[in-house]
Amino acid sequence: MNKVNFTYFLFFITLSIFCQTKDFTQFVNPLVGTKNMGHTFPGATTPFGMVQLSPETNLQVMFTEDGKYNPDTYKYCAGYQYDDTTIFGFSHTHLSGTGHSDLGDFLVMPTTGTLNLEPGEAKQPKSGYHSQFSHKNEKASAGYYSVLLDDYNIQAELTATDRVGFHQYAFPKTDEAHIILDLVANIYLHDDKNTWTFIRVENDSLITGYKQTNGWARTKFVYFAMQFSKPFTSYGHKKYDKSKYNGFYRKFDEEHNFPEMAGKNIRAYFNFNTSENEKIKIKFALSSVSTEGALLNLNTELPHWDFEKVKNETKEKWNKELSKIDVETETLEQKESFYTAMYHSMLSPIIYEDVDGKYRGLDQNIHTSNGFVNHTVFSLWDTYRALHPLYNIIQPKRNNDMIKSMLAHHDQSVHKMLPIWSHYANENWCMVGYHAVSVIADAVAKNTTDVDLNYALKAASNTATVPYFDGLGYYMNLGYVPEDKSSSSVSKTLEYAYNDWCIAQIAQKANNTDAYSTFLKRSKNYLNVYDQSIGYMRPKLADGNWRKEFDPLNTHGQGFIEGNAWNYGLYVPHEVDKMIAMMGGKDSFSKHLDKIFTTPIEDKYIEHNEDITRDGIIGNYVHGNEPGHHIPYLYNFTNEPWKTQSRVRMIVDTMYSNKEDGLCGNDDAGQMSAWYIFSTLGFYPVNPGSTKYSIGSPSIQSAIILLENGKKFTIKTVNQSSKNVYLSKIKLNGKSISTLTIDHDDIENGSELIFYMGAKPNKKLTE
Amino acid sequence: MNKVNFTYFLFFITLSIFCQTKDFTQFVNPLVGTKNMGHTFPGATTPFGMVQLSPETNLQVMFTEDGKYNPDTYKYCAGYQYDDTTIFGFSHTHLSGTGHSDLGDFLVMPTTGTLNLEPGEAKQPKSGYHSQFSHKNEKASAGYYSVLLDDYNIQAELTATDRVGFHQYAFPKTDEAHIILDLVANIYLHDDKNTWTFIRVENDSLITGYKQTNGWARTKFVYFAMQFSKPFTSYGHKKYDKSKYNGFYRKFDEEHNFPEMAGKNIRAYFNFNTSENEKIKIKFALSSVSTEGALLNLNTELPHWDFEKVKNETKEKWNKELSKIDVETETLEQKESFYTAMYHSMLSPIIYEDVDGKYRGLDQNIHTSNGFVNHTVFSLWDTYRALHPLYNIIQPKRNNDMIKSMLAHHDQSVHKMLPIWSHYANENWCMVGYHAVSVIADAVAKNTTDVDLNYALKAASNTATVPYFDGLGYYMNLGYVPEDKSSSSVSKTLEYAYNDWCIAQIAQKANNTDAYSTFLKRSKNYLNVYDQSIGYMRPKLADGNWRKEFDPLNTHGQGFIEGNAWNYGLYVPHEVDKMIAMMGGKDSFSKHLDKIFTTPIEDKYIEHNEDITRDGIIGNYVHGNEPGHHIPYLYNFTNEPWKTQSRVRMIVDTMYSNKEDGLCGNDDAGQMSAWYIFSTLGFYPVNPGSTKYSIGSPSIQSAIILLENGKKFTIKTVNQSSKNVYLSKIKLNGKSISTLTIDHDDIENGSELIFYMGAKPNKKLTE
Repeated sequence: MNKVNFTYFLFFITLSIFCQTKDFTQFVNPLVGTKNMGHTFPGATTPFGMVQLSPETNLQVMFTEDGKYNPDTYKYCAGYQYDDTTIFGFSHTHLSGTGHSDLGDFLVMPTTGTLNLEPGEAKQPKSGYHSQFSHKNEKASAGYYSVLLDDYNIQAELTATDRVGFHQYAFPKTDEAHIILDLVANIYLHDDKNTWTFIRVENDSLITGYKQTNGWARTKFVYFAMQFSKPFTSYGHKKYDKSKYNGFYRKFDEEHNFPEMAGKNIRAYFNFNTSENEKIKIKFALSSVSTEGALLNLNTELPHWDFEKVKNETKEKWNKELSKIDVETETLEQKESFYTAMYHSMLSPIIYEDVDGKYRGLDQNIHTSNGFVNHTVFSLWDTYRALHPLYNIIQPKRNNDMIKSMLAHHDQSVHKMLPIWSHYANENWCMVGYHAVSVIADAVAKNTTDVDLNYALKAASNTATVPYFDGLGYYMNLGYVPEDKSSSSVSKTLEYAYNDWCIAQIAQKANNTDAYSTFLKRSKNYLNVYDQSIGYMRPKLADGNWRKEFDPLNTHGQGFIEGNAWNYGLYVPHEVDKMIAMMGGKDSFSKHLDKIFTTPIEDKYIEHNEDITRDGIIGNYVHGNEPGHHIPYLYNFTNEPWKTQSRVRMIVDTMYSNKEDGLCGNDDAGQMSAWYIFSTLGFYPVNPGSTKYSIGSPSIQSAIILLENGKKFTIKTVNQSSKNVYLSKIKLNGKSISTLTIDHDDIENGSELIFYMGAKPNKKLTE
Repeated sequence: MNKVNFTYFLFFITLSIFCQTKDFTQFVNPLVGTKNMGHTFPGATTPFGMVQLSPETNLQVMFTEDGKYNPDTYKYCAGYQYDDTTIFGFSHTHLSGTGHSDLGDFLVMPTTGTLNLEPGEAKQPKSGYHSQFSHKNEKASAGYYSVLLDDYNIQAELTATDRVGFHQYAFPKTDEAHIILDLVANIYLHDDKNTWTFIRVENDSLITGYKQTNGWARTKFVYFAMQFSKPFTSYGHKKYDKSKYNGFYRKFDEEHNFPEMAGKNIRAYFNFNTSENEKIKIKFALSSVSTEGALLNLNTELPHWDFEKVKNETKEKWNKELSKIDVETETLEQKESFYTAMYHSMLSPIIYEDVDGKYRGLDQNIHTSNGFVNHTVFSLWDTYRALHPLYNIIQPKRNNDMIKSMLAHHDQSVHKMLPIWSHYANENWCMVGYHAVSVIADAVAKNTTDVDLNYALKAASNTATVPYFDGLGYYMNLGYVPEDKSSSSVSKTLEYAYNDWCIAQIAQKANNTDAYSTFLKRSKNYLNVYDQSIGYMRPKLADGNWRKEFDPLNTHGQGFIEGNAWNYGLYVPHEVDKMIAMMGGKDSFSKHLDKIFTTPIEDKYIEHNEDITRDGIIGNYVHGNEPGHHIPYLYNFTNEPWKTQSRVRMIVDTMYSNKEDGLCGNDDAGQMSAWYIFSTLGFYPVNPGSTKYSIGSPSIQSAIILLENGKKFTIKTVNQSSKNVYLSKIKLNGKSISTLTIDHDDIENGSELIFYMGAKPNKKLTE
């Protein structure tokens, strides 16, 4: 090492010691949410990483043999269920916390003994290649997962770089060690899911290939390069295709040591001899572009075989992101819940480009990102609410990249639409609204994006005027979505109206008064679905009449998607005051909120909704799903704001924990966790697109938020405890404030916010 | 026009008049070979063009409902049968003259009246979208095809640039004009052929998309851009998929005016209003890379809508290629047969790259050709015999590009093999041998390639040493392919031995004495499958014994592929003299040849071979298939060379014509036609890889061959007629020659060759 390098070395060592003495990863438990319906995965990934290398505890098919939907499908959105005792292998792509699913690509399973390529039944031990495991032999931490595969006495360890999964399998001594690569396995598997798969054995320790599926992502391509640390002694595959045609490949013994394997459904295997405790390592790189791209990613990100080094570097990457909010809490459990929520908030959106910036676009052409890092997995109906607002505080640069990814999606879209749910170079059209505009408006309002405003406005306006999109043509003509033309019409009308308000905000910043007035006018459309005579938002028909059949409690078929008129009907975040006035005023509204939280909902009202589960329900309030996430904060707009404080605290304490069942519903790509982070810090973005946050009840002792502008936003609480959930006083930079809002500027300016807490409400504190 | 431009203009006009006064395209009849088993297509294409836009007269499925092979499949290798009266549409990719098939991509059909997306049955008029047609309303010429679609009174015209098909449809007046784009249609269609198809409606007159198939090419991607000359008024599609899963696309009315259409099997349509005789034109560009590539090809090659201009330019491209051999013949029929053969010899291999040089490689990655034009469709077991030798005379630069394409194929091959049958970024493994080495050796011998010799040798040697390839491992170990391990073992042994001789020739030129001796030794392996006791090449078993069951006349299951011991057993082109000596000497060999031509083969011996048809048989000689193409020339190696002259003339006169049934078997990607061109000119490359041509019986009056070195090789005949088929004297550059061979240098030096003909043989002329 020369002198200059040594100086640099000292500088970075010093910097590193100075900047990061705390290990926040110790408070992350990736298993949180893996029991019941959290739909999180426990495996290894980097923050926002393209690879999510995680165990599958069961392999489901979506449709049973008689053609019926298999209700177990839903349980395995992320591939892993804590109550299971079986591991089928480790695959490389997973969604975190979604309520519909896909992926589970490239399942790798190490086995020993007589080769068995059939996965077998989870309920029947040794019925296939799967293995029993127990949680006592399982470790999950940020960027690292390990488990003992009991059936084979193989210790499996996983870590990852951004684009490369790194496996390490310690085998027993055997002449029959196998590594299975199952290309049939898929999450949300159905008969026609795989459209094509392809493996090339490049040499005795490197294979490449791709898998193409037709699932939630209609046409998904994932390319890979898989490098073994040791040459395999032989290999082969089994093809499960039904096609009568195999061309002249029939002249080969394709199934044994033939270096091209292809078909719709194939399982490959690679054989080894191992000595006792010999570790076989695998580097498994992904690309959306090509096998060439996957190899480039592999060689660039992971040119060595040092597993511990990657494990530590990935842990360090996580620590860097987690350290952006340094909280102190009363209990360890709270701290673990907090940092696990932080962890869950950074599992998606994921980067979606190769190290050279190339990525597959929505038009299926290969693009190169210019001035941004392309991302995918935008579950926007969920994440616009709190996750992207959170990013505007702790990840503004990355959020700006995400916005640019959305604009690229728009440019590549044949509909000229921003993403609804951006999914591996596909639009999967899940849920309602066009909430990318909210993400853009929020970033515009908070000055965290440098995109051209006119371009952003044009993209937003294009998106909001596609007549064949989900009732939007009717909405534009009639001012509401008619239920007889497009179901979930009230949800759509409310979400569109809010989205239009967002577009108006962008227009205002762009000084486009025409667009501003057009979309501001459209933002009032919520008025058109409010039935004054019954006091509920209600589905209206194309002829202007209210639909006769209507049950404001039923969450199915009543004009709302995954919600009912009682809760989803309160969705006017941009004009809460006007909505409250329209609904009879503050006191009556308070009473309605009380009723929501205290009237138990009957099973018959939720039985048709996979996404509404008992765990996440308080009365009629459904925390386990998104449309009500702002509801606890609505008391702030009434004469009883302290009820926000108690309800928020109740939800924080009862709906989250540091245990495997610590999520009361799908984490929804981080939205549930983002709600928790905001709410424990004491404020929440009720209306993304505005700079205001509504104050709730902080449940931390203190927090320091590191901002990208170099400043720190400090939150302190005085006298806070599980009993002292009410606000008695709030000081911002030493001055008492009387409203229950703070502004984004307060954060960005590096203010100090002190919450003084007590066991009883201070009823003078109002909005 | 300014003065300089005007001067250029005059210059080019003069040049054009000077260089090309003759129109050779008038002698081309693309319908030759469309009746019975020629398997040629009559549609529009440029020389070696990537688009072959041609009508389909029936849509076949490969397997009937009970799972059996549909024997009609074979008839439709090129999509068109002259005896049919129905047209189903015009698709953009076709193979010319093959005996197995694929392609037929992007079938376009114009219709009127009530929309019908079902193709219907050919036998039932008006049972689907197909139309009746008659040959009196049909025109086919080089680069142009037109037909009246009787059912709709639509005049269809087709032409093409290298990468763009150009359609022109003259409609009647109607409010119900449709253009159907059928993505279900495929040549050699089976249930699982389409793996995925995708259409994007970019705007009201442009669509893009792709089709991915699993056929003879295992994983073929073809991307397209389709531009209409007039906006469609509406559009839609029908999806025929059986998949239970459609994600959230179900929220759309996907079938009507929804600009993304995707699935395994879809048919799309585009609606128009037309006035009487209104012409709707379509530009349809292909790419192996992406829709972006297809659009680039479209905009680069065809930026205008002038149909006549393209038709004329394409005709001119053909004329330029056809003019490379300027023949005079006794009859117009002969001239038409000759130029049609010339035409057929340039329908493949085809260029396979976008205008920017990008192409899909065998590894499925996107490559850019560097210093060559990438080609595909190498049907090498057929074309190494005479087609590539022909190219070495009239297309040496392009042949060099083809060799470089083969080397790129090798580099991209996981097997590190040169192509066996290169097929749209796939290896389809059809037939036996590794004849790319012959093409390279022939070009090396004739100095028409500038590839690095060591690199070419390495690629050839790699190809010849892949142990799992088609019995090659056994061949390397035992010196022959054992029939009990790999069928068609004698054919394989003979072809490998010849191929090895070719590699030895490359090695010799590369001064690699080790490789030379290795492969020269291997080239003697034909000795190992000759059974002296019965006087035939015969299948041998792995234990060294001859197979007991053996019938030297049967073309099925007797160690030969598409041939029998009588004819295929004479395949030792590199050591004909030694073979003849081994088989008992010249006189006995002559008698065997006589027997071949005079003993009628019984049906039972050929019934299992689709590729051997009665039309192409003389006694036991099968001209309609390749393995015997050198046989008529083998008399030259005996004491009765004049029998070569009469037999060649007999074959030229009886096995070819200028009529629709003018080919006696599959044209085999141009090999049959190349045989005709050589044989009518009076010589034939019996042993590609050597510079010698064996002289037969010229049937032209004269020929001038334009060489790329600027010289002209002139052939004249004196006293030649259908009766005067025997050579009495040969003069090369004014000097009599007594051998029946000429050398490639004689051609390249621009010699004059005069054949003096008579009605009786001159028995003094011998080899």
